[in-house]
Amino acid sequence: MNQQTIDRIRKFTEDRDWDQFHTPENLAKSIVIEAAELLECFQWSDSDYDLQHVKEELADVLVYSRNLLDKLGLDEDEIVNMKMTQNEMKYPSEKAKGNSIKYDKL
Amino acid sequence: MNQQTIDRIRKFTEDRDWDQFHTPENLAKSIVIEAAELLECFQWSDSDYDLQHVKEELADVLVYSRNLLDKLGLDEDEIVNMKMTQNEMKYPSEKAKGNSIKYDKL
Amino acid sequence: MNQQTIDRIRKFTEDRDWDQFHTPENLAKSIVIEAAELLECFQWSDSDYDLQHVKEELADVLVYSRNLLDKLGLDEDEIVNMKMTQNEMKYPSEKAKGNSIKYDKL
Amino acid sequence: MNQQTIDRIRKFTEDRDWDQFHTPENLAKSIVIEAAELLECFQWSDSDYDLQHVKEELADVLVYSRNLLDKLGLDEDEIVNMKMTQNEMKYPSEKAKGNSIKYDKL
Repeated sequence: MNQQTIDRIRKFTEDRDWDQFHTPENLAKSIVIEAAELLECFQWSDSDYDLQHVKEELADVLVYSRNLLDKLGLDEDEIVNMKMTQNEMKYPSEKAKGNSIKYDKL
Repeated sequence: MNQQTIDRIRKFTEDRDWDQFHTPENLAKSIVIEAAELLECFQWSDSDYDLQHVKEELADVLVYSRNLLDKLGLDEDEIVNMKMTQNEMKYPSEKAKGNSIKYDKL
Repeated sequence: MNQQTIDRIRKFTEDRDWDQFHTPENLAKSIVIEAAELLECFQWSDSDYDLQHVKEELADVLVYSRNLLDKLGLDEDEIVNMKMTQNEMKYPSEKAKGNSIKYDKL
Repeated sequence: MNQQTIDRIRKFTEDRDWDQFHTPENLAKSIVIEAAELLECFQWSDSDYDLQHVKEELADVLVYSRNLLDKLGLDEDEIVNMKMTQNEMKYPSEKAKGNSIKYDKL
């Protein structure tokens, strides 16, 4: 996400005085609520979905995720790289290649 | 997310030959599964949470969201700005300021 | 669910003095967390799932749903029948037969 | 849930020829989608919620859970009692009493 987009999200919250509702818990609830709306695009079919609707719901997940990063003062690249280091250790490519088995069963 | 982080996520998937599992539907399921694990950090308390755990679960949401953007060939800034335009119209600041009422009740 | 099972769930909560944690909001979070664990059984495949794991996660959804019914003093049959009346009106069988279109598009 | 309510749910599905959409995976998705709609009643507040809306969303969770029990030929009391036995072992009342710590940290 570029700085202009991030600034737009922050201004949206500030203009509405919504920071008071953005506790970490409320944002975590909001992310799962939007993620479930994204899933609803695929409720009865994995192939016949409304791409515009998918875009809107995925955007909502990304906006609330940005709100939570901001609220907790986190750097997106830092936490994602920290997690990717964990993932690379949990799923060594020689073992995980071509299968979707969970790490604790690998 | 910077390009280096995006490239790391893509390489992780390629090295494990996991693109075959990354259908849009499977990624939507994965986002909601990780979002619920994020919510679990706040299951019984809104204040007493494990920040390291929150970082890991939020990172998982962001990684699967990046996978879905890639899978559908979407630009993050484009879809977020499109949605923010909708949000700004649905929640005019003079009406929405300081309250958390849903747009269809505003 | 028969009365004996309901009583066992209630006794479990009472013996651990857990009613204090069972606010409606916490139970709603718990239901979605367990529902996502149920979905995890189908994360990468719709056919290759662990039935024992499915049973356990579905049971968790049912237990927390029972906790929420109890907390709010609701009768399961009453609310389900109220909702089925709504569903029958929203999805008249002649229109809805054999398709999975959402009621607002029917 | 009494037999009459169960029969009504089954008839609703049959009359609409919807059994074809009720794969275990689709029902698991549906349960989490409805659970998130239930959570939405508590998105910004744990105390100021619309009870009628809560009833409707909880009913949806219960209806899809019943559909999944039916689809997999499961007995609700059997799976709930099986899980309660596990819970009673994972959370011995002397250890778990009055705290909400997860079993793997008890």
